[in-house]
Amino acid sequence: MNLMSAKYATDSRFRLTDIQAKEIAATFGTPQYVIAEAHLRERIRLYIDSFKEAYPNSQVAFASKANSTLAVLAIAAQEGCIIDVASEGELRAALLAGIPANRCHLHGNNKQPEELAFAFEAGVSEIVVDNFGEIELISELARTDEPASQIVSEALGVEMPAKKKIRCPNLVLRLAPGVDPHTHQKISTGQDDTKFGFNVSDGSAEKAVQRCLELSLPVIGYHCHVGSQLLDPEAQRSGGETLGQFAKDMKAKHGFEAKVINVGGGLGVKYTDADNPMPIPEYCRLIVEAILDGLKGSGIEPLLVQEPGRSLVAESGVTLYSVGVVKTVPTGNGSTRTYVIVDGGLSDNPRPVMYGSKYTVERVAQPDGVIQADIVAKSKMTVSGKHCETDKLFEDVLLPNDTDAGDLIQVLCTGAYNSTMASNYNRYRRPGTVLIRTDGSYVPVQRPETWDEMFAREIVPPGLKV
Amino acid sequence: MNLMSAKYATDSRFRLTDIQAKEIAATFGTPQYVIAEAHLRERIRLYIDSFKEAYPNSQVAFASKANSTLAVLAIAAQEGCIIDVASEGELRAALLAGIPANRCHLHGNNKQPEELAFAFEAGVSEIVVDNFGEIELISELARTDEPASQIVSEALGVEMPAKKKIRCPNLVLRLAPGVDPHTHQKISTGQDDTKFGFNVSDGSAEKAVQRCLELSLPVIGYHCHVGSQLLDPEAQRSGGETLGQFAKDMKAKHGFEAKVINVGGGLGVKYTDADNPMPIPEYCRLIVEAILDGLKGSGIEPLLVQEPGRSLVAESGVTLYSVGVVKTVPTGNGSTRTYVIVDGGLSDNPRPVMYGSKYTVERVAQPDGVIQADIVAKSKMTVSGKHCETDKLFEDVLLPNDTDAGDLIQVLCTGAYNSTMASNYNRYRRPGTVLIRTDGSYVPVQRPETWDEMFAREIVPPGLKV
Repeated sequence: MNLMSAKYATDSRFRLTDIQAKEIAATFGTPQYVIAEAHLRERIRLYIDSFKEAYPNSQVAFASKANSTLAVLAIAAQEGCIIDVASEGELRAALLAGIPANRCHLHGNNKQPEELAFAFEAGVSEIVVDNFGEIELISELARTDEPASQIVSEALGVEMPAKKKIRCPNLVLRLAPGVDPHTHQKISTGQDDTKFGFNVSDGSAEKAVQRCLELSLPVIGYHCHVGSQLLDPEAQRSGGETLGQFAKDMKAKHGFEAKVINVGGGLGVKYTDADNPMPIPEYCRLIVEAILDGLKGSGIEPLLVQEPGRSLVAESGVTLYSVGVVKTVPTGNGSTRTYVIVDGGLSDNPRPVMYGSKYTVERVAQPDGVIQADIVAKSKMTVSGKHCETDKLFEDVLLPNDTDAGDLIQVLCTGAYNSTMASNYNRYRRPGTVLIRTDGSYVPVQRPETWDEMFAREIVPPGLKV
Repeated sequence: MNLMSAKYATDSRFRLTDIQAKEIAATFGTPQYVIAEAHLRERIRLYIDSFKEAYPNSQVAFASKANSTLAVLAIAAQEGCIIDVASEGELRAALLAGIPANRCHLHGNNKQPEELAFAFEAGVSEIVVDNFGEIELISELARTDEPASQIVSEALGVEMPAKKKIRCPNLVLRLAPGVDPHTHQKISTGQDDTKFGFNVSDGSAEKAVQRCLELSLPVIGYHCHVGSQLLDPEAQRSGGETLGQFAKDMKAKHGFEAKVINVGGGLGVKYTDADNPMPIPEYCRLIVEAILDGLKGSGIEPLLVQEPGRSLVAESGVTLYSVGVVKTVPTGNGSTRTYVIVDGGLSDNPRPVMYGSKYTVERVAQPDGVIQADIVAKSKMTVSGKHCETDKLFEDVLLPNDTDAGDLIQVLCTGAYNSTMASNYNRYRRPGTVLIRTDGSYVPVQRPETWDEMFAREIVPPGLKV
């Protein structure tokens, strides 16, 4: 724990009460994802208001990869977010949630021609352009009177439904600002050595600007995203400043004045008590200062955009599990470990196995109808899942000593990158998501998978059936 | 690379020819999982024959978690495998493939009462018992004349369809033999500190035997599984010997004579050229010797069982991708990295991100109709996916210097733990699986997901739709 951790040591996470946990488990079963609507709305408002206060001409885009449950997207849009989509599928999710395409930005480091055609014809307001091949493809789609789908159909030799011609969306260039953030290697994306964007340091970014101007494409600004779950905002500050400086340089050298600067997302959340992210208002001020520092003297006054995903939705969600088995085993030298085994795991939350992510786990209620006040002494236990895998899901978390089969436990801060990353590993059906409405009622917003759905894609050729 | 690696340096992996790759990509699209039926059947036969040769009274069970595509299960069963299922879902998959329940073994470290009831009533031949709570539950299900589903319905207060009473399946006790294998920590499961099974060293295993005998349950033997992707078979040898010794001890102390000893799976496969697993015949001899060593002097002559999953199916499968973007970026000190970005990634193969797994990647064909002989000089490149994640999927693999957008590449050895672990991350639809029949024809055995399927579980409550 560093000084900054101590400085920001508050707990903003949603958690279920014992009564809510018991009611939800009884009505919907476990495992169960839960999202708290009021908490989520408050979090989004705080982000939008803080950013507006630091810089009025600003916009918050929700990075829908964090949680693309349609109801979550709808809430984000109702609160005024633009929706950042990273694939045709995420764009379809936004459209199905009733969000107009002109409130969506399309991302992606390998956009397929069909995806671009779909985005053109849906009418997204903005495409975040990743690479030179994409510039040429967009130029091709933009330059003729033919609908995008028709051009792609001809080029690929596939049938796509013909649509009407729609103007080229605005383009924002994704830049790799050469910032190496202090986060998990797998989710840091702004350094030079990255698959994403146009490198600033090797001149690619400048060439991309020149190429867009040459082709008369509607380029309007720059984007970067330096990493995720950042608890030290230095990388974002540095990324923002680099974008500002780059905008200033491009104006000086090529007369191109950026109208939009988008610094992506990345603010960390409180997965465990030891994680203490900077408060959102302070973070917004810091980001704005950094960009304005970079822009200083340029006369550029752009729209500033941020794209939080995790930091908008993670803390509004929990996962509710039932304990099935409690087992104490020797670990050598006379020590033991107590395993608390729940009815989910790797398939509903792959993050501990993927990233070594830590979570806060709390016992919520015992099965005998008694709601347990928090008076029992606690010990370190390891919560594991039911998969054929040594998934020490949540290692050495503090749980009451009388934790037993039938108890309910909740894992905090699972609103992001849980339901979107779920699998059917070991043929487990993916759990549903329940939304706790602002009036306290529970509504399912994603129902659990059925066995029919699990097996719908299987085809056993004649002669193979046993 | 140690001496053993050099000793076993052969390449048994299936790979597509240029023509097959082009035909499959043209017909079914990319990304695409491919399984080669002839290769898979040969692999299974080699395993069964090698085991029988080393010990005639032996049985191979296919660990279906590795690949539970129904067609793969059917092929395994046709070749004579028992099917090892680790959940109700995997059991349903086997039944849907036409495999009788009495050829299935049920595993699981946290079997739900409903799962056990389902397995009882389906009529599985064997349950691999993990913990004391499970022994009591099974005893309850076995002891009355009521159907299992009825007992569970009453206990849980849920409705389950009433079925006829079926006798208790045979029980095999899963033991934790205290072996610490040299493999990835997340997939090593036989050490003392594990969520799986009854610990031998602390006396739990003996207590479990006694409890089953007390309850007159149909216990028939022991099981262990020390880990996965083991390239040094010492852990399995040691696990097998421990099981043998334990069986001998239990006969001496309690007069219980094991009829079955099951040493699980775990033999490694050739993910990269540097991985050189022991040949299957030699491995089978080693396992048999180890168990017989442990049993020596006991007079016990059990059925020996192995449960390979990965080592039966991984090398029979490849994943076919199309290259969308090739990008060279600076990495500092004047060095560069070339990213080859494909149209899949983390959502169809999470293993590189989960376990740091390495794979062999090969360019198969170029798009212009010319089939490229392997004459172009190669360099190290990094194959990345299209997800919003710094997924250096396949880092520093050798690819031809002229690798470009439109090329097809295949990733070898993806027949296990790929389709079963796939997700919809970034709202990508999961790819299909094509089976190359023994006559060379292609048939889809899992079709790709549709958009309708992607969004079928979503519910937007009234008032939330934007």
